Amino acid sequence: MNSNTEEIDKKEEKGKKEEISNLGLSNKDISRQRLLNKDGTFNSRRTGLPFWETFNFYHYMVGVSWLKFSFIVFSGYVLLNLLFAIVYYLLGVDTHLLGVIAASEMDKFLESFFFSSQSFTTVGYGRISPIGTWTSSIAAFESLVGLMCLAIATGLFYGRFSKPVSKVLYSKNAVVTQFNDITAFQFRIANEQKSELIDVEVRVMFSILREENANTPYRKYYNLKLEFSKINFFSLIWTVNHIIDSESPLYGLTKNDLTNGHAEFLILLQGYDDTFMSNVHSRSSYRHNEILCNAKFANVYGFEEDGRTTVSLDKISDTESV
Amino acid sequence: MNSNTEEIDKKEEKGKKEEISNLGLSNKDISRQRLLNKDGTFNSRRTGLPFWETFNFYHYMVGVSWLKFSFIVFSGYVLLNLLFAIVYYLLGVDTHLLGVIAASEMDKFLESFFFSSQSFTTVGYGRISPIGTWTSSIAAFESLVGLMCLAIATGLFYGRFSKPVSKVLYSKNAVVTQFNDITAFQFRIANEQKSELIDVEVRVMFSILREENANTPYRKYYNLKLEFSKINFFSLIWTVNHIIDSESPLYGLTKNDLTNGHAEFLILLQGYDDTFMSNVHSRSSYRHNEILCNAKFANVYGFEEDGRTTVSLDKISDTESV
Amino acid sequence: MNSNTEEIDKKEEKGKKEEISNLGLSNKDISRQRLLNKDGTFNSRRTGLPFWETFNFYHYMVGVSWLKFSFIVFSGYVLLNLLFAIVYYLLGVDTHLLGVIAASEMDKFLESFFFSSQSFTTVGYGRISPIGTWTSSIAAFESLVGLMCLAIATGLFYGRFSKPVSKVLYSKNAVVTQFNDITAFQFRIANEQKSELIDVEVRVMFSILREENANTPYRKYYNLKLEFSKINFFSLIWTVNHIIDSESPLYGLTKNDLTNGHAEFLILLQGYDDTFMSNVHSRSSYRHNEILCNAKFANVYGFEEDGRTTVSLDKISDTESV
Amino acid sequence: MNSNTEEIDKKEEKGKKEEISNLGLSNKDISRQRLLNKDGTFNSRRTGLPFWETFNFYHYMVGVSWLKFSFIVFSGYVLLNLLFAIVYYLLGVDTHLLGVIAASEMDKFLESFFFSSQSFTTVGYGRISPIGTWTSSIAAFESLVGLMCLAIATGLFYGRFSKPVSKVLYSKNAVVTQFNDITAFQFRIANEQKSELIDVEVRVMFSILREENANTPYRKYYNLKLEFSKINFFSLIWTVNHIIDSESPLYGLTKNDLTNGHAEFLILLQGYDDTFMSNVHSRSSYRHNEILCNAKFANVYGFEEDGRTTVSLDKISDTESV
Repeated sequence: MNSNTEEIDKKEEKGKKEEISNLGLSNKDISRQRLLNKDGTFNSRRTGLPFWETFNFYHYMVGVSWLKFSFIVFSGYVLLNLLFAIVYYLLGVDTHLLGVIAASEMDKFLESFFFSSQSFTTVGYGRISPIGTWTSSIAAFESLVGLMCLAIATGLFYGRFSKPVSKVLYSKNAVVTQFNDITAFQFRIANEQKSELIDVEVRVMFSILREENANTPYRKYYNLKLEFSKINFFSLIWTVNHIIDSESPLYGLTKNDLTNGHAEFLILLQGYDDTFMSNVHSRSSYRHNEILCNAKFANVYGFEEDGRTTVSLDKISDTESV
Repeated sequence: MNSNTEEIDKKEEKGKKEEISNLGLSNKDISRQRLLNKDGTFNSRRTGLPFWETFNFYHYMVGVSWLKFSFIVFSGYVLLNLLFAIVYYLLGVDTHLLGVIAASEMDKFLESFFFSSQSFTTVGYGRISPIGTWTSSIAAFESLVGLMCLAIATGLFYGRFSKPVSKVLYSKNAVVTQFNDITAFQFRIANEQKSELIDVEVRVMFSILREENANTPYRKYYNLKLEFSKINFFSLIWTVNHIIDSESPLYGLTKNDLTNGHAEFLILLQGYDDTFMSNVHSRSSYRHNEILCNAKFANVYGFEEDGRTTVSLDKISDTESV
Repeated sequence: MNSNTEEIDKKEEKGKKEEISNLGLSNKDISRQRLLNKDGTFNSRRTGLPFWETFNFYHYMVGVSWLKFSFIVFSGYVLLNLLFAIVYYLLGVDTHLLGVIAASEMDKFLESFFFSSQSFTTVGYGRISPIGTWTSSIAAFESLVGLMCLAIATGLFYGRFSKPVSKVLYSKNAVVTQFNDITAFQFRIANEQKSELIDVEVRVMFSILREENANTPYRKYYNLKLEFSKINFFSLIWTVNHIIDSESPLYGLTKNDLTNGHAEFLILLQGYDDTFMSNVHSRSSYRHNEILCNAKFANVYGFEEDGRTTVSLDKISDTESV
Repeated sequence: MNSNTEEIDKKEEKGKKEEISNLGLSNKDISRQRLLNKDGTFNSRRTGLPFWETFNFYHYMVGVSWLKFSFIVFSGYVLLNLLFAIVYYLLGVDTHLLGVIAASEMDKFLESFFFSSQSFTTVGYGRISPIGTWTSSIAAFESLVGLMCLAIATGLFYGRFSKPVSKVLYSKNAVVTQFNDITAFQFRIANEQKSELIDVEVRVMFSILREENANTPYRKYYNLKLEFSKINFFSLIWTVNHIIDSESPLYGLTKNDLTNGHAEFLILLQGYDDTFMSNVHSRSSYRHNEILCNAKFANVYGFEEDGRTTVSLDKISDTESV
């Protein structure tokens, strides 16, 4: 530990009594596990709250895969129809449903089921139609339920659609590179979507576990100063660059220091998606074992015959040794 | 009252002629009641405006409980169908509705009602169908009304769904705690939802009633300076911390001063919900009788077998005496 | 014109060559008419663009009154049905529509019309049903059109609903008031809706026509400094206050100066609506003849029996002479 | 190249090692082609990602023209119906569909197709109705699919509608103009829509290719300082103005320098649309051959008989020689 980081430590000394840093992560979290997963989710767990307090149907349905979503919609449709079919069947198919063509009890139940589905979707062919107050009432109610489910489905579809899918590509590794007499920590990100991201800001936090005093180890968090932390447009590729000068908390640290300190670089990106007209956020992290030393990123720029620039996004993780 | 707060008072002297503080609360509000309820609603009332000027159907329907919402939707459905049923009945069931099966006038009205519901939901089985210009026209109109109601319901459902439910848990009490030679005012908040809150900012306002001059009592409002007033992520738990040093308006105040001054700490939280892609706000307050002196919050951090950190949100209000 | 405003003039001299102030209004706009109407719309006109370039259907339908909206929806429904009815009628009712009950050509057309409405709304009773390729195809197409119209209507309804209706009440007049040795320009605003407005900011611009040199009159625009220009919450009433001290562009101006200069105070308000989760804007203006001198606003605060504060919004424009 | 720009160059020297400027464009992009197209899209291409990684159905459907949108919806409708029609036909029309009127196999297939469309749109006239478990099940499934497609269409319509169409008009050319002893770079923009744009900010970037050292040409990017870069309201017309003084990177450059350096002025506009309640962005650019020297923009202001100001937006590109 050199004097520069000590100085930074002193400035942060005051915050040590705090249970939380301005990253929202606690100094008391002395886990040796990853803090942030590659996909940007936090690697800690919350306990003590009942399931229904934290579960949100809309949130869940907007977030699941299209396969699961379709399965849930289809299952819900079959289950609701089964439920109503049972009611119609119990009320009596012969006397309360007109036009049923059935040779057996099973056929009667199936006709109930199909009548139910015809009411629920409001297709109402009318070969089978309800007579009698009870069956007519239930059918009237089922049609209302069907329409409300349609309304809910519409909301869910729109929620799924209008959710920005800011797929930000991160290079597999970060590198510590050297040009002239300058050392820098770099990683590369690209915008996978065709939409422009506007006013994109990247923040990089460096976290390391300190165990000077074995009884009270604690995590430290540093903001890394970037040469450009904000760009107006993010349409192609961006090499995020932190110069490791004497003011950097990385200054003087060896690869071993990073490993022993369970070091992790937390990446936070935010911007505005021009297509979805919404703020987007992306998170990722590089652990100590994902840092390549003495490497630099390979060139991704080329030109087409008509003179237009091309950028090869499949080479985003390509590195060369220095 | 010590000299420090007096100094702050002087700086605010100029604002005294103003009717309003930058909190939007009036110095003239010398009520001895709570300013802000625990759930974040204001405890004052507006009068003088007619009901319809301030009532907003969408606002109301998006805000009510699911039970009330369902009840209103169902009642509206039944009422509208009754209305149209009366019209069909008055136009004449025998001559204007084909396929009616009815033994009595009551049966005829019921058939009108069910025909109405079949038109409204556009299920249109067709056993009963309209003939004649009038009944056909009314039925055509009813189907349009039904579809518009479906459109409205869809909008309401989506409005209810897409409204962020930023359930922020507040510790039941705030504490005045001491470590080393530092005194601090602290309370704890947690994010009850699974979604991340981003760029969360907390502001704490301290309000106290001054009655030096009994004829013109007035309320004073102070912003409390926080060690961290903004964090990048709010995924777990946050101990909000105000150091009571010589610059704090709380400096030198006793528990009695707080009680006599009907003191209240107003908490304002805002952030961005990553799931609902919307700004969220939460408000709460601690009154003087909800402050525990010489207490500190109990630890909520633990570790799972795999080394992951856990946070027990059910212990958020747990305190220990210092 | 006193020396203070002259000084301010000099600072703005540089901007004179510009065609536009930072308000977006032009110095060249030497109209003697109101700049901003009471309802916040601009009083100038744009010409030279064809109607369809500037017309936006969604914008129009979201902005019209509910009466006009209903009328347009209903008319569109009738017109579209008429159109399809003509097609069905021309294709031949006898051979292409099954189940028609008609004694005359008029009856046949009416049956076509009702069949059309039954297809459009997808109610499809089925008494009348299409046979033959052409009529069946048109009917299949009409049902699709009907569903798309429903989709559009749903979007319009949601657009109308989710549009924040930040009804901000402005006091009828602004006042120039005096307390102790201070002179101030004040007006009062209130939040008419039940929803909270958050982080509300008010900007007041003072505009006056200068004609020193009769050949080149021009408009000047000044920002007025407010004691509080931003409040955290706007749930009740707010007296916006500009102190007319020696730095104010109003300093030394008489009522006559305002009249001769066609003076106008432009009010811009913006905030965040907690219910509609959207930014809201409101604009209004006070012309020289809407300023009351030597008046002050009457008290609106009261208390209920239970000690809660009440604010009488109907007294917002009440003034008393000083 | 004069000493002023050299000085600016030095300040930016440090950034040269960076691969990216704060505009998000790379110094390494030494293409001699246009950087930004007139319509604001970037003129570079991304390669290396599979089609499905970058394609987004919602994004595409919200962005295409109404003609293409209608065509896709109609084609999808016909195709889905054909698909289900084939299934119904293969299951057997005679035994599984009741009420079919068909003289030939072709007629049978057409009846299948129309039954399919009647199920899909849920119009369900009922002349044709399904019997048997298989056909009834498929029909029940088709109605569900139809409703889900309606839900999707509703979402797409709303997405198309609620997308702000901030049509910003740019003058065809930018001018370099002179008044008194001041030289300025100017262009004119107007708001084509009736909605107000609020808090509009314009940024102008000047880009020029440097080839001092023929082996390593690179692009330089400069921010141009504007007299007003932000206005409160953008309802009419705005002349954006950059003074070419000794601190301007344009100072001392000749028309030839611009041509040789493949110079380009990149325009970025952002604001808030009061009607669509959303942020809007617009981009455009002027290449060296679109700059008129010694010209100035013609007047667009006029007055109506009632004294109201008018602005002729069709004259936005009109210039006069100085």
